[in-house]
Amino acid sequence: MSLSPAPACIELTHGSGGRVTAELITNVFHRHFDNAWLRQGNDYAIFTPPPGRLVISTDAHVITPLWFPGGDIGCLAVNGTINDVAMAGAQPLYLSAAFILEEGFLLTDLERIVISMAAAARAAGVPIVTGDTKVVERGHGDGCFITTTGIGVVPKGINISGDRAALGDAILINGSMGDHGVAVLAAREQLHFITPPQSDSAALHSLVAAMITAVPELHCLRDPTRGGLATTLNELAHQSGVGMQLTEAAIPIHAAVRGACELLGFDPLYLANEGKLVAICPAAAAETLLATMRAHSLGREAAIIGTVTGDAQHLVQMKTVFGGSRLVAWLTGDQLPRIC
Amino acid sequence: MSLSPAPACIELTHGSGGRVTAELITNVFHRHFDNAWLRQGNDYAIFTPPPGRLVISTDAHVITPLWFPGGDIGCLAVNGTINDVAMAGAQPLYLSAAFILEEGFLLTDLERIVISMAAAARAAGVPIVTGDTKVVERGHGDGCFITTTGIGVVPKGINISGDRAALGDAILINGSMGDHGVAVLAAREQLHFITPPQSDSAALHSLVAAMITAVPELHCLRDPTRGGLATTLNELAHQSGVGMQLTEAAIPIHAAVRGACELLGFDPLYLANEGKLVAICPAAAAETLLATMRAHSLGREAAIIGTVTGDAQHLVQMKTVFGGSRLVAWLTGDQLPRIC
Repeated sequence: MSLSPAPACIELTHGSGGRVTAELITNVFHRHFDNAWLRQGNDYAIFTPPPGRLVISTDAHVITPLWFPGGDIGCLAVNGTINDVAMAGAQPLYLSAAFILEEGFLLTDLERIVISMAAAARAAGVPIVTGDTKVVERGHGDGCFITTTGIGVVPKGINISGDRAALGDAILINGSMGDHGVAVLAAREQLHFITPPQSDSAALHSLVAAMITAVPELHCLRDPTRGGLATTLNELAHQSGVGMQLTEAAIPIHAAVRGACELLGFDPLYLANEGKLVAICPAAAAETLLATMRAHSLGREAAIIGTVTGDAQHLVQMKTVFGGSRLVAWLTGDQLPRIC
Repeated sequence: MSLSPAPACIELTHGSGGRVTAELITNVFHRHFDNAWLRQGNDYAIFTPPPGRLVISTDAHVITPLWFPGGDIGCLAVNGTINDVAMAGAQPLYLSAAFILEEGFLLTDLERIVISMAAAARAAGVPIVTGDTKVVERGHGDGCFITTTGIGVVPKGINISGDRAALGDAILINGSMGDHGVAVLAAREQLHFITPPQSDSAALHSLVAAMITAVPELHCLRDPTRGGLATTLNELAHQSGVGMQLTEAAIPIHAAVRGACELLGFDPLYLANEGKLVAICPAAAAETLLATMRAHSLGREAAIIGTVTGDAQHLVQMKTVFGGSRLVAWLTGDQLPRIC
């Protein structure tokens, strides 16, 4: 007679807080995220931060499908929150991760996700130091949701905020727009491409560190995720009380993304990105910033895409490739739900 | 012709990251959580912590029903994470909140929850400084899930951890066991009581502050939430490599909880609590700690319930009210799923 095999699926008892929860934490989360904080076995992590201002940011991740070309919900949850922290100009220090799992979710799938998170955290040098696991009944969740929260420290003298864009500032991005959105769309709709688009999911904190070293007077940073570049620029224009003038021809968009958008009626400026940032800096520093970004592996296709203007209505305008002018409005409706 | 009325339900577009998301954030979250960090409009909050060691803790909340006697998911999400931070002996400073909403969830219900969170945060003096909102399709979530993360600072000289219980230490609790579990059970199963049990949901940080001032040599603190007192004591015994000897008669349990448990076959030692803590301290300090706890409004029914022993198997034993001895094992299975 042999013992019954371990359950291959998440069951409600994995969320009970009892012995089965403890085993899941030890065998899956602690095993892969392994670090001194988790080994302590407390419901919290204690750390001594470097002196200075700290940043906290949080993101829930509900992307579907859980795996897509170029990434998965795990690396996305790590990189996405690292990026939110980095957009304050901060060096990310620690992450927490809270899982909401659906009864019936395969344990092997959970482990794949956790391994991906662990690899992303290790690559970024930002450990996952505390967490939580809840389980909901079948049909009351959707496989796996992950909420990550990040803590970082802002270097002295750095003052980056969405309300600091000023008249005449240059607007830069670190590369092509829409890759994540189209990659997820392709995975979801099982579209076939000759060169399949890949998500750009990446942790941007080392790029940001290089940028603030080269141009400490950087005014704004923001990652154009949900809502895409268009929405991010409108947010920044609104927050800073300025307008913006873009040059469409300067915005890099990969051929596969452009093709998919034309075919399916999407606008790449509204598609989500997961390894991209918008930077706004004084015009005089723009070429230095551009060169710094291009010298970094995550900024090779960086470009100056526009200028901050004095529009009282805080509109984002774009000179089109055909020489006309187009209003780049906020996203209304939802092009692609559950993109991150 | 009039404009169409604002949607009364959460729609997918509330999670798009576009204009409708921005309106939800402004009109609901910022309006009620209102503070200087949120008003900045960034995806993060910046703060300068007091010097010293910091604590981070996170919890996902998936409780059903969302409203129950004595509380709701909103105050629970605030108090629960404040308590996790406080269990390090820390003073909680800031919270983040990430919402996963199901398409079709009533906006009025969301606002009720947000108002409850805001009230709990204000009462505790711990602002919600950053957040996130995602929306999933109808049938892929369950109304409202909330993940909160807390940051706190540990006072100098305090060294509380689950691995510090030592031979001869006293084990205390701050009041009756099982109230939250039975209150949620009653709401879920629509049970009727003459005196309906109320959840004990409460923020324990001011009680903890009084306790560490009176007894700075406190060894362990933990909140017996999921899995109840039994599981929490087993965790601590395991983590510290000790055994425990409890006295059943010393453990306060309200009559309604005892009655419901007898009727329904539950064991109150395994029911979740949301305003309770276990404290372990040197025996010599136990009476001082007890008096301090009893002098606080959240510790009036505090009791010394047992002693740390030298059991090599790390078992938790209990002298029953009938004079016998009973093993208090880890929770196996799940008495009540989605209790927090």
